[in-house]
Amino acid sequence: MIRVVLLLSLFIVFSPSFSQNEDSLEIRKIFDEALVEGHAYENLRSLCKDVGARLSGSPEAEKAVEWAKELLEGYQFDKVWLMPVSVPHWVRGDIEEAGVNGKAMSIKTLGGSVSSNGKIEAEIIEVQDFEELEKIGQENIEGKIVFFNRPMEKRLISTGEAYGGCVKQRWGGASNASKYGAVGVFVRSMSHHKDKHAHTGSMGYEEGVDKIPAVALSIQDAEMLSALLKEKPNSLGYIHVNSETLPDKQSYNVIAEIRGSQEPDKIITFGGHLDSWDVGEGAHDDGAGVVHSIEALRILKEIGYKPRYTLRCVLFMNEENGNNGGKTYAAVAKEKGEVHIAALESDAGGFVPRGFTIDGTEEQVMQMQSWQALLKPYRLHLFEKGWGGVDIGPLKEQNVPLIGLRPDDQRYFDHHHSDTDVFENVHKRELELGAASFAAMIYLVDKYGLDSSFNGEIILD
Amino acid sequence: MIRVVLLLSLFIVFSPSFSQNEDSLEIRKIFDEALVEGHAYENLRSLCKDVGARLSGSPEAEKAVEWAKELLEGYQFDKVWLMPVSVPHWVRGDIEEAGVNGKAMSIKTLGGSVSSNGKIEAEIIEVQDFEELEKIGQENIEGKIVFFNRPMEKRLISTGEAYGGCVKQRWGGASNASKYGAVGVFVRSMSHHKDKHAHTGSMGYEEGVDKIPAVALSIQDAEMLSALLKEKPNSLGYIHVNSETLPDKQSYNVIAEIRGSQEPDKIITFGGHLDSWDVGEGAHDDGAGVVHSIEALRILKEIGYKPRYTLRCVLFMNEENGNNGGKTYAAVAKEKGEVHIAALESDAGGFVPRGFTIDGTEEQVMQMQSWQALLKPYRLHLFEKGWGGVDIGPLKEQNVPLIGLRPDDQRYFDHHHSDTDVFENVHKRELELGAASFAAMIYLVDKYGLDSSFNGEIILD
Repeated sequence: MIRVVLLLSLFIVFSPSFSQNEDSLEIRKIFDEALVEGHAYENLRSLCKDVGARLSGSPEAEKAVEWAKELLEGYQFDKVWLMPVSVPHWVRGDIEEAGVNGKAMSIKTLGGSVSSNGKIEAEIIEVQDFEELEKIGQENIEGKIVFFNRPMEKRLISTGEAYGGCVKQRWGGASNASKYGAVGVFVRSMSHHKDKHAHTGSMGYEEGVDKIPAVALSIQDAEMLSALLKEKPNSLGYIHVNSETLPDKQSYNVIAEIRGSQEPDKIITFGGHLDSWDVGEGAHDDGAGVVHSIEALRILKEIGYKPRYTLRCVLFMNEENGNNGGKTYAAVAKEKGEVHIAALESDAGGFVPRGFTIDGTEEQVMQMQSWQALLKPYRLHLFEKGWGGVDIGPLKEQNVPLIGLRPDDQRYFDHHHSDTDVFENVHKRELELGAASFAAMIYLVDKYGLDSSFNGEIILD
Repeated sequence: MIRVVLLLSLFIVFSPSFSQNEDSLEIRKIFDEALVEGHAYENLRSLCKDVGARLSGSPEAEKAVEWAKELLEGYQFDKVWLMPVSVPHWVRGDIEEAGVNGKAMSIKTLGGSVSSNGKIEAEIIEVQDFEELEKIGQENIEGKIVFFNRPMEKRLISTGEAYGGCVKQRWGGASNASKYGAVGVFVRSMSHHKDKHAHTGSMGYEEGVDKIPAVALSIQDAEMLSALLKEKPNSLGYIHVNSETLPDKQSYNVIAEIRGSQEPDKIITFGGHLDSWDVGEGAHDDGAGVVHSIEALRILKEIGYKPRYTLRCVLFMNEENGNNGGKTYAAVAKEKGEVHIAALESDAGGFVPRGFTIDGTEEQVMQMQSWQALLKPYRLHLFEKGWGGVDIGPLKEQNVPLIGLRPDDQRYFDHHHSDTDVFENVHKRELELGAASFAAMIYLVDKYGLDSSFNGEIILD
């Protein structure tokens, strides 16, 4: 018999103080405003229904810029402006067909794919990953369509981690298959959800490879095809798509700010991305992040909070296929010598918020974790070192701590980049809770900072 | 300037040990089985589609008993049996109409309501609560239909708490209105979701009051009616329903167990309720709890776990309108002198699990909280003193600690007791994570107990 002394978890929490009470009250006001008088849901409805899908370079993306500028101006923040961003302009064609043995499958051309230049027809070879290509060898791949059928790993609790584990087959599948002489690529959609909707997303070509077309198959079609190939290995696949890449266009990041009352030259940036894929309505990806960000700034203004630092809401353009909005923002900040206290991003959907991850120093992680007790009543429990976000990522080289809002992710990839990423699949209260959580974190960062020299002491005025 | 020393949260966690590793591995196996080879989703599909809605006393409830018995027998647990339970038998009529100024509204007769005995037509008086009835007085209520329009409080993060805050108008609205001479009752559905589906649920009559019919209005209709009454206070409401209460019937709790390997006379009971309301398919309420419970027992068997105590899965009958299954189970346990280590319940939906609440002593709360580190990788964060469950509630007088699984509750009342509580509104992975979480908690309770004299020491064999 082994006797183990189990120490009960001891939490040494803040002793109640005036300051904590004040914070509790302010955060309660933030949630009340979001849940009772919130604008997030109606704003998302308008973005999804009045603007719709809005891929960089498209007329809808330009409409989204106008939509956002007008909305932000209506809230009478201290300043609203557009920051020019050069964006790629890929266009899905009016022909988008692929199938097997003459029977159509539910597909989406991957973003960035070349046209098939007429119909390609070829045998199909199924693989799980790039390593398998090498094992099979050129003689078994040349002239064929390669079918990457690696599913997202069900065992992983984080669907984001499961996505990360197989997204390279989408991004690099065409280049890797092309090296062995393949003529086209089928990629299983990145999703756990077995429906008929294929999921698009970005792909690219390595320099020097022959560019071959790449399409995503719905999960149902991927499973059907895999079963079919076991029975009939010589089945003939076909791809007929006429997507194309046009010259770059000019677009914009849309920015609004409330000027800091004490140190206006120091900035807290927070945002989501205004562009989306050209399917569905970009509701979770990233309409939710857009309205979370707008709502956070609106709420903080509405409750009369006077920020110490300048609060800047940035709606980034072109996260989906280039991240030029994020890169441009960071470059402009560097050029102007702007000082960022922190950057926050919401780009993980409009689902019920679970907490935040921070890409920063150990001290910054601890600083964020010191706020747990204030946010626990709102069922925010996850405060960990981790991912910030794509749009704010380029600020990292300026040593800006990056914070990502973490909504629950079980349903996120069901809709991601597919026809079902629509307003109706966003839940009102979940969206509102996300906006309030985002605003509460911005409030705390503004009030206490995330100084990398944080040593356990906070100076309150 | 005030200088506050903020102590960083210090967690004194278990030092890694063989035992913790063993627990981690076992819990990992539980989640793997649920997520990769799980039966919960298919079992729920079958319960919803092959059986359907199953109110106590209905033929479908009896079909559910057969369904569960057969399923449990198929898993070859040590023992499967039926425990007789006498249940009420209320039947919704084939006439179910209510409206205003001759225009139909979307309604559901509340469970337990009497028939209107033909069509009632009367002016409508809107109130928020019982106190308002007293203020308004008999002269303004007599002969009218009382419309209880108190919404669930949006500010509350817990929708369960918001539900708890206004459910008394559903349960007691008719009796309270009847005392002032009302002829019928409209009750705003208990939901945050503004759709056209009315939500039923149980109501009762106090002794001695005239029994008047009570119907729930959909949220859209409640809001329409409230607006209409501001414009046209003399609007005429009508109710025409012919529900009735028939003699009690005999039904069953369905029970399966795996016998304990060390102390088989001590029992850990866990379950959900097999009955549902007679609308929708009882998918979240409580098909989810039923399949969580079955799946937990199946998983623990499948991974080869040998429980110390007897693990007993109980599918209770009649939670919705009487709780006779729960009462009978506790009475039988008492009569037989059975010793229960703990009772666990899943009756809060099939949504992503957030943690557990425990209705027990402070020591039992701490014992449960001591397992947090093992469950955090599965995003279970909520370990608090709180509600166990309705079915297991009657065991409390035998001093059994009661544990409730806590799925996220933002969407629960959208579907609760309405036509939309169907299989399609349950998410596969969320359901599976719930089943695995339930199984993991059962495993930990079995391995370590919840002894009320728990003093920070655990004895491991």
